[in-house]
Amino acid sequence: MTDAGNDRKTDAEDDPREAEQTARQAEPAEESESWEDEWSLDPTLPARAAAAAAERDHIGLKRLIEDLHAADVADLLEQLGHDMREAVVQVLGADLDPEVLSELDDDVRDDVLAAMDPEHLARAARELDADDVVYLIEDLDEDQQQNVLEALEPVDRTAVQQALNYPEYTAGRMMRRDFVAAPPHWTVGQMIDHMRAHDDLPDAFHDVVLVDPALKPVGLAPLSRIMGSGRDRVLRDLQRDQMEIIDATEPQADVAYGFNQYHMASAPVVDEAGRLVGVILMEDAMEALDEEAEEDLKRLSGVGDESLSDKVWEITKLRFPWLAVNLGTAILASMVISQFDATIAQIVALAVLMPIVASMGGNAATQTLAVAVRALATRDLTAANMRRLVTRETVVGFTNGVIFAVMVAVVEVIWYGDYKLAAVIGVAMVINMVAAGLAGILIPIALDRAGADPALASGTFVTTVTDVVGFFSFLGLAGMVLL
Amino acid sequence: MTDAGNDRKTDAEDDPREAEQTARQAEPAEESESWEDEWSLDPTLPARAAAAAAERDHIGLKRLIEDLHAADVADLLEQLGHDMREAVVQVLGADLDPEVLSELDDDVRDDVLAAMDPEHLARAARELDADDVVYLIEDLDEDQQQNVLEALEPVDRTAVQQALNYPEYTAGRMMRRDFVAAPPHWTVGQMIDHMRAHDDLPDAFHDVVLVDPALKPVGLAPLSRIMGSGRDRVLRDLQRDQMEIIDATEPQADVAYGFNQYHMASAPVVDEAGRLVGVILMEDAMEALDEEAEEDLKRLSGVGDESLSDKVWEITKLRFPWLAVNLGTAILASMVISQFDATIAQIVALAVLMPIVASMGGNAATQTLAVAVRALATRDLTAANMRRLVTRETVVGFTNGVIFAVMVAVVEVIWYGDYKLAAVIGVAMVINMVAAGLAGILIPIALDRAGADPALASGTFVTTVTDVVGFFSFLGLAGMVLL
Repeated sequence: MTDAGNDRKTDAEDDPREAEQTARQAEPAEESESWEDEWSLDPTLPARAAAAAAERDHIGLKRLIEDLHAADVADLLEQLGHDMREAVVQVLGADLDPEVLSELDDDVRDDVLAAMDPEHLARAARELDADDVVYLIEDLDEDQQQNVLEALEPVDRTAVQQALNYPEYTAGRMMRRDFVAAPPHWTVGQMIDHMRAHDDLPDAFHDVVLVDPALKPVGLAPLSRIMGSGRDRVLRDLQRDQMEIIDATEPQADVAYGFNQYHMASAPVVDEAGRLVGVILMEDAMEALDEEAEEDLKRLSGVGDESLSDKVWEITKLRFPWLAVNLGTAILASMVISQFDATIAQIVALAVLMPIVASMGGNAATQTLAVAVRALATRDLTAANMRRLVTRETVVGFTNGVIFAVMVAVVEVIWYGDYKLAAVIGVAMVINMVAAGLAGILIPIALDRAGADPALASGTFVTTVTDVVGFFSFLGLAGMVLL
Repeated sequence: MTDAGNDRKTDAEDDPREAEQTARQAEPAEESESWEDEWSLDPTLPARAAAAAAERDHIGLKRLIEDLHAADVADLLEQLGHDMREAVVQVLGADLDPEVLSELDDDVRDDVLAAMDPEHLARAARELDADDVVYLIEDLDEDQQQNVLEALEPVDRTAVQQALNYPEYTAGRMMRRDFVAAPPHWTVGQMIDHMRAHDDLPDAFHDVVLVDPALKPVGLAPLSRIMGSGRDRVLRDLQRDQMEIIDATEPQADVAYGFNQYHMASAPVVDEAGRLVGVILMEDAMEALDEEAEEDLKRLSGVGDESLSDKVWEITKLRFPWLAVNLGTAILASMVISQFDATIAQIVALAVLMPIVASMGGNAATQTLAVAVRALATRDLTAANMRRLVTRETVVGFTNGVIFAVMVAVVEVIWYGDYKLAAVIGVAMVINMVAAGLAGILIPIALDRAGADPALASGTFVTTVTDVVGFFSFLGLAGMVLL
């Protein structure tokens, strides 16, 4: 299953000139002029690829993409509409680099797989690493999955099947099954000779995993230290200070956090018995970190697991639930207002001014919420500092409340010249800003304690609080003071 | 400047038992039971550390933190209040691991530096790598900066000064000046012998940078390939297919994007003349990626560059600007409402129902906005698919608009039994949801084109649009139809 990696290595070995050219293309002079252009896809490329595919111009299409990194070809496919994407995949046929498949967003991936010749798909699977094959087929029908699995070598098939047994978004799905392990008593010389004797080394690895006879990881020896030490040094003496052993069922969010917190280059993954079954590299963790950040951003904004290439009805369906919840909370806020309709009928200025109180509260709550959700994700908001932070948010809410109370009261006086109403809106503003601070931090904490994702429904809950408190305090006070 | 790294390595070399113990402590059985506990800081620790510091119990305090990773000690300091933090730093004195300083959030870092004995600070700087020293002193007064710089070896001082010349958040600040470079014609044997002869190798590196005689990078030879190849192989033949050369002035957001897109382990950084001046490793890029994700999340929610340890008045000051902008836009929305005060005076139900239209528009716009901002950050929303995505958002807005128009009209009929008003609120809902979709995607695109961060002010602009359009369409239609 390391064929892809080895192919690549062999290419570079056979044709050093080519590899050198690739490096030259990225020379600094060009780089500084057109970074955007170099790291972003050429914006005319999708249209040109689509045109070539429409003309069934296999050679032209192949030439367009042959110098691109697999990740860029994946971006190109993602930017095309469904029909064009299908056409490009079919015209490319066997010339679609299997690595591209593992770089695709999951819905585009399924689109591309559906457009591929089953024979090409099977061949692609044979060229990919087990973790990439897992990503490729995890959402396929059982039949299609079986077809791909049957095309694999027995060893690889077992590896893929085992990985599929772990739940999605866990270490067991992320890990690479291609790793280098050695007993801790080996010398540098033994290690180097062993590596030189094996030409099926993984394409990327940063550490040799030191294992005991029961295959339990006991340390990590970084390649940089092995290479810098004499042949007679023992690997055990070169190992890193720290090794985090990851359980195969750990959620990927925790794995990503750990790698970023401790700047780890790699970590061994073990099964329930504590035996080494795979390795996660920092590059895998970085991808997971990016996915988790995207999820937090989207969840906080009430967006589900949608992607840019989803079709209209998919997007509509995915966004519907949070809008429906919001309709419910908006109706709740309206019911609060309707309690005061007699008051509003007498003083229409209340209807004019009430959105200001609600809107300021909503904004202040959103600010607090973003900080709290992020702090929970990075484990910086803990039992140790919770009380201090809740107090701080309350004080900040109060302080900003007083400042904006004065500002909005001045606006009211200029507008309506009613000092009593100015006092009412000012007091309501302070109350709502304090409520905003409290809701903004307490609601995500409560969700987190309850085992839910603090980002998930916080936004809706929090603005419900600020709408209800805002309308109630403003209209209620007005009714008491002004009538 | 690689002393810290070497110390660490030497520790492990001198005392293999200790290193093995560290590994054992992380055995899988414990791991699976208490991942949360192991990767999160013990929540009682900050209080215990504060108590020890209050009693000036140097030994007790030292014992509490001696087994912690530097990143965890940094978290501990971040979770303490200002006074306690100062006490802990002063009681620890010279026993505060310099690595902790480079793990701190920037405001806590400045707090800790102020509490440190200048002599300890100078010694800490001598133990850190140049990139960490830069982070340490970048925000200090010129006087204090000078003091630290004078404590450094001349070579290190120059390195730090050069790095400080690059703007913050650029590759020049991120890069490590400690790297291994070699001519491409060297053999594996020469390379290994060279590395064995030098005991000041960087603590972490994944590639040897191949350079031409003018010090321009021409390729990257991964350690894994060097180690797996015979002594007579030439490095040029082992180099990676792809190398991205990074200009020292490139923004860190672009660097982070590139590493994640291309799964790079390291990338050479060059000056204006194209000469190699440093190397960025994936671990540095991962940190930058995390910082950028935090920034997007916060900017989208109208939060500035605040951190958990900021004091009340700092937070208040940082959140004020966006609240002030929001006050302005809320007043604008109120002015729209005030145009229709005569209408509202006649039909109070309008005041009750109008927040529903505005709120649904605001929510729908926030959803679109989150997707658009993320897609711009990952360069998935480009000139090639912009038209398609804008169309899609319009259609999604219209579709959801129709669905929720029907729902809200039904609610209105149940509530007020007024079919004309039901029609008015339904039509206003469709108009506002379409406006929400358009504003949610066009405003961040426009900001991006103008060279601004699309996340920065989008939220405020977008909800202004949905408030104004929502109130205007609902009240305006009501005035026309119902009176």
